[in-house]
Formats: sequence, structure tokens, C-alpha cells
Amino acid sequence: MNIPSALKLGLTVIAIAIVATAQAPQPIGIPHIGLGDGPFTFDTAEQHKIRVTVVARGLVHPWSLAFLPDGGILVTERPGRLRIIRDGALRPEPLAGIPSVRAVGTAGLFDIVLHPKFAENRLVYFTYTKNGENGKFATTLARGRLGDTGLTEVRDLFSAEWNNLNGGSRIAFGPDGSVYFTISATTGNAAQDPASDYGKILRLRDDGSIPDDNPYVHRAGYKPEIFSMGHRDQLGLTFRPSTNELFSCENGPNGGDKINQILPGRNYGWPLVSFGRTNPGPRVSDAPWKEGFEMPFVVWVPSIAPSGLTFYSGSRFPAWKGNLFVGGMKYGELPGTGRLERVVFNDKLEEIRRESLVTDLKQRIRDVRQGPDGFLYLLTEEEDGALLRIEPAP
Amino acid sequence: MNIPSALKLGLTVIAIAIVATAQAPQPIGIPHIGLGDGPFTFDTAEQHKIRVTVVARGLVHPWSLAFLPDGGILVTERPGRLRIIRDGALRPEPLAGIPSVRAVGTAGLFDIVLHPKFAENRLVYFTYTKNGENGKFATTLARGRLGDTGLTEVRDLFSAEWNNLNGGSRIAFGPDGSVYFTISATTGNAAQDPASDYGKILRLRDDGSIPDDNPYVHRAGYKPEIFSMGHRDQLGLTFRPSTNELFSCENGPNGGDKINQILPGRNYGWPLVSFGRTNPGPRVSDAPWKEGFEMPFVVWVPSIAPSGLTFYSGSRFPAWKGNLFVGGMKYGELPGTGRLERVVFNDKLEEIRRESLVTDLKQRIRDVRQGPDGFLYLLTEEEDGALLRIEPAP
Repeated sequence: MNIPSALKLGLTVIAIAIVATAQAPQPIGIPHIGLGDGPFTFDTAEQHKIRVTVVARGLVHPWSLAFLPDGGILVTERPGRLRIIRDGALRPEPLAGIPSVRAVGTAGLFDIVLHPKFAENRLVYFTYTKNGENGKFATTLARGRLGDTGLTEVRDLFSAEWNNLNGGSRIAFGPDGSVYFTISATTGNAAQDPASDYGKILRLRDDGSIPDDNPYVHRAGYKPEIFSMGHRDQLGLTFRPSTNELFSCENGPNGGDKINQILPGRNYGWPLVSFGRTNPGPRVSDAPWKEGFEMPFVVWVPSIAPSGLTFYSGSRFPAWKGNLFVGGMKYGELPGTGRLERVVFNDKLEEIRRESLVTDLKQRIRDVRQGPDGFLYLLTEEEDGALLRIEPAP
Repeated sequence: MNIPSALKLGLTVIAIAIVATAQAPQPIGIPHIGLGDGPFTFDTAEQHKIRVTVVARGLVHPWSLAFLPDGGILVTERPGRLRIIRDGALRPEPLAGIPSVRAVGTAGLFDIVLHPKFAENRLVYFTYTKNGENGKFATTLARGRLGDTGLTEVRDLFSAEWNNLNGGSRIAFGPDGSVYFTISATTGNAAQDPASDYGKILRLRDDGSIPDDNPYVHRAGYKPEIFSMGHRDQLGLTFRPSTNELFSCENGPNGGDKINQILPGRNYGWPLVSFGRTNPGPRVSDAPWKEGFEMPFVVWVPSIAPSGLTFYSGSRFPAWKGNLFVGGMKYGELPGTGRLERVVFNDKLEEIRRESLVTDLKQRIRDVRQGPDGFLYLLTEEEDGALLRIEPAP
């Protein structure tokens, strides 16, 4: 375990301001730990030694990645740039074609995924925060066609209503060819409003039109694009390869992070029920769960700020097959506490244990993906962010 | 941050067997990290640099400690020995007077506390597992008078009914002079049985007799010593200095660890409601909480295996004043993941954030106490256990 090379003490102090309230406005400081050069090796349970390699660095708040059939890797940066890594090197120039995004706070450019028939149509889907008038903005799904220098024929497929709600968005293509994506609502009651897209998972055809078999498509007062409701800030969305079941991960405000198994037309309860507290301290709800809402699939109290979600289905890590991997950006609201969380299930998909990985790196983990090579890839959510690859080590 | 000296890779592999079930019988291995020589320094939030010093080592599964007015420190070892540290050195010979204990699995010698008038009466209270006939045993509260070579006039004050339930026991003297102590029930339904002492907090006078004002003293079918019920394995018990409110920490089976604020005659729900799962995976209950049971004060999902509980009230760590400290023995059921957990509250005693401390030591933390010098003291729950002192570092 080569901790010494894994840690490099940075000089800056991150001053994070707890979401401003009358009760808890003080910033709290902790020295920021920069990412070392690596590779790093760590002992882990069941899979034992792993090696973590820095594939690329100098990424500014990287949010998502997509593996191209030709070996390239697309990476979104939250400020609104699309980058590409070729032959193991980050190209200095961003790819063209990303529209102007609202790059303020947690808003910006989010997820990127390839169309299931990308090899034929070269279509790439992405989500971002689109600026509107009067200080309003909207989470938006767009697509473009990938060429040598970037995206062409870029167009918005769907925009949520103009609003001022923050939060990210993830995309997942379903086995039915539909595109599922999350619209977050970190504050307010939009998640329970069937006339709002916020706090929902939406389902569209790949051209942005609304499928006839969406659960609320014939229900008055409900937006027909809604697939599930009652969500907060969902920063992970994935289909389980072996069964094609849909899962999302969702940030609670202060405790109450969770993974949900997403079923059509169900209500997941935010903000009427939660295992968490508001940032100033009071409980979100008088009960952590009530009849009529879906029970969380996996819960974290305190928060780990989950982002990125992948069931491992490769052969490189035999002991991790079928495990669920979740990026974590902080523990208990403190910086320097990021991790990759591993969740182990029994054969009925009931949780039996968890493990926190790469905690010694002290980096926020924004995304986790399985590469076509069967290794795991991570993005660190930092100003000087990196793409990391995890392999078994001898 | 001197990580290198903080870690010393041990040679043994701990093979822990998940509680045997049809679904999850495999042992999982991770290399055990031995405790280095120290001192270790760590960066922390709010209080910033801390130094951790090894006060004593070579303690076999130390469970509890008590500070004597003359500067000595009593330490219990689970196998049934009472040790003493004098002038910073662990005396090689155990103190005399501890009765024979059942030292099997998690059973053995547990907590030790001084009588509030110890300076006058030299009385020491402790809990242990007493062996009975036919393979049965009983959690027992005893006391003795401390002399130069050990305890004299040792006698049992109270034994729970003969049973075969495992789990530890903590003691706390109340501001009313009563002695409160926990009787654990890790399995079965005893916690909801008013005719059983298991899964309860009991309240007695300091001579072992039952106070007339206990909540169930006049209620048919209830044992009169019961103060609160519906508990699982409670390994921490403390009165909050500023308000004299009573708190316990309780181990869930697999997720669902919690801290409870203990009020007389209340039911805390185990095993009818829980935030956790059974070790093989199914949820303990169909709802994490229901009307009629007390809501947990603080929850951990996944488990940290909390043991030891102290509100910090000293002046050495100004930024930690009023914070609650909880030892943790593992995270998510995996070894090598112990920590000291810090919980921060607003002025209404609502949780606002948490921090995991001394995680880099990779030791199980069994107990946490505030010393008369205002520093924090920890016991590591290991075969080669240690007493650690935490101080602010420049």
C-alpha cells in the first residue's frame, strides 16, 4: 500500500459554505489533498490488491465519460466543454458543438452517452443547463453527430420548463431503445408536482418525442414525459445488465442518500418522506418512509453525495461481478472524504455489505463506468479533475 | 500528515466469517493493518490538526476505561482481566477480584465505571457475562471496592435471567445517583418481551435494589428494573453533561446502527422496526419506523458498529465542544474500517454534519472517553489492543 505516493498535500484550503441558513452559516476548512502522480495500489476486500492509474488530468470538473468504439474517450466538463482522450492523452482543444450552457454553481454540462446504434449513426446525447430569460434556466437533453472535430447537427430534443432549480442530470438508454434521463430538484416541492418535469425521471423516444406507453401519458394534469416522480438530485442512472432493471442514485439533503429501483409510474417520496435532514438540522419529514411511496433500494445515512452508478459485469474483477459501484463526493457534508462505494448483494439482489474504496486518495468521485476493457473508470469532481482507471494488481 | 508512520502492514489475514447463512457463508479476507508506534498527526475539520499518541498497548480486546482521581487508568479486557495504567505504563499484572467470566465470542468482561462518590467509598461497578448451568449465561452488574492490588468485597448486584443471548453492556451513573446499564439482545424477540431483561436499559439504585419510581414498577407482566425497551446491542451509554439527558448507541444487524435519546418507559422498536437488514440481506422490518416507537436520534446506514459514546465538554478542543463522539468498529461489515465518528449539532441538538476521524489507523474503536485532562481517549478493539490519546497538534 503506497500511501506516501498516493497523497500530496495541497496548499489551498477549501472553504466550503454550508448552504446558507440562519442556523449554520459558518464555513469549515480542511486542507485540500491534491491527487498524486500514481499509480496507487490499495488492499480491498474480496478482490484484494487493486492499482489505480491516472489516465488523464487537468480536466475541469469532469462530469461524465463515454467510450467510443475506436478507443477514444469523451469527457464532459461541467463549465461546458466536451473533451476527448485519444491514445491515452487528453487532447488540448475541446471538441466543437456544445451549445452555450449556464455554468454557475452545480449547473452546466452534465451527462454524455452514445446512441445504442452509434456505430451506424454517430449520435451522441447529452444533458445541460440551458439559459433562459429573466434569470430562469432549464435542464435540457440534446444530441449531435460526432465527427472528427466535434459535434454537428446539434439540437435540443427536450427542455424541462423554465425554472430556477439546480441539480444535475444523467441519461441511460433502455433496452427498449428509449432514452431515460433525470431532472433534479434540490429544493422546493416540484418533485411531487405532476405538472413539472423537475424531480422526475423522464422517458422519450430517441428523437425526443413522447412514447405512447409512458405511464402518465393519458392522465390529466401529468406531464406525459414523466416515467417516475418524487426524486431529489439524481446523479446516477443505469440499467442492470443481467436483468435490464433501471436504477438511479439520489442525493438526500443531509443524510438520506439512496439508490432507487425505478419502476414506471411510481413515486419515490421526495420531499414528503426522507431518511435525511435539511442542512440546518430539522428532519425533512416526520417519518423516513410512508405507505404509497417506494422504499429505497439502498440508503446512506450520513450522506456520501452519490454520483455515477454502474453494475459491474466484466471479467477483470471476478470477485466484484454483479456488485454495484457508486461514486461518492463527500461523507457527512465534509470535504476530502470522497470514495468509490461498492455494494454487494445476495442472489435476490438484497444488500449484504458495502465497502468504501480509494478513500486514501481524498478525491470527490463524480462518475464510475465500466470500460470496454472490463476495467473501472472514475472521474474526480475537482477543479483539477482526473480520469482514473482501476485494475487488479498482482 | 504522517501516514507512513501511521501504518504498519501486518502479516496475518483476518478471515471473518459473515454470520453463517445459506446465502452468504463465504469468508472474506483483507490484510490486517497493525497499529504503528506513533504519534500520528491528522488533519480534521474545524479542530484542524490533531495528534494521536499510543498511551499503552498489549491490551487484549480492551473494552472500557475509567480514570481514577490519583491519575491511574483502569482498563477492562474482554477475556476477564482488569488492568491498570500508572504513570503512563501498563502494569504487567492484572488487578485481582474480577470473578470468572464467560469469555466466548463477544461475551466477557465489559464496562467499568466509578461510583459518583468513589473518592469516599472506592466503589467500582462493572458488567460481565456470568456462566450458568446447561450452557446458559447472564449479563451481570457487579461492584467491588478498589484497593492497591485490586477489588475486594466483590459482589453481583444484579443478573439478568439465564439465557443464551450475546451482546455487551455499558453502565452510566445518572445525576439522580441511580445506575443505568444496558442488556443487549442481538438475536430473537426478547427486546419486546417485558418479562425479559434482554434488549433493555435497566435502572437500579447503587446497591442493586429497584427504585420505586421506575417506569414499569407497578405494571403487571413487566420487570420492574426496566427503564426502556426495544433495544438490540447497546455498546455506548452516556449522560449529556450540559442537560443530563441520557443517550445510548445501538448496533443494528447490517445497517440501522443508531443513537437513541433514552426516555423512561419508551420503546425503541427492535426488532419490530429497523433501518437495517439482517446479515443475509432481507430487511428487518417492512418499515424503518412506525408510530408508537421512538424515532432514532442519529442513524448510520451502512453500519459502523458503534461502541463507546461521549459528549465532549472540555476546553482542549474548542471547535468540538458539545459534539458527540462514537467509536466505530467497522463500516459496511468489513474489517480494517474502524473510526471515531464525530456528530455535530445545531443549538436545538439536531444533527448538522458528521466526520470520520482516525480512519487511517485502520483500527476498530471500542470506547471513547473524555479524560480529566480534557483530551479524548480511545480503546482499540483488537487482539493487540491499545489505549490512544487525542490532543490538538500545533
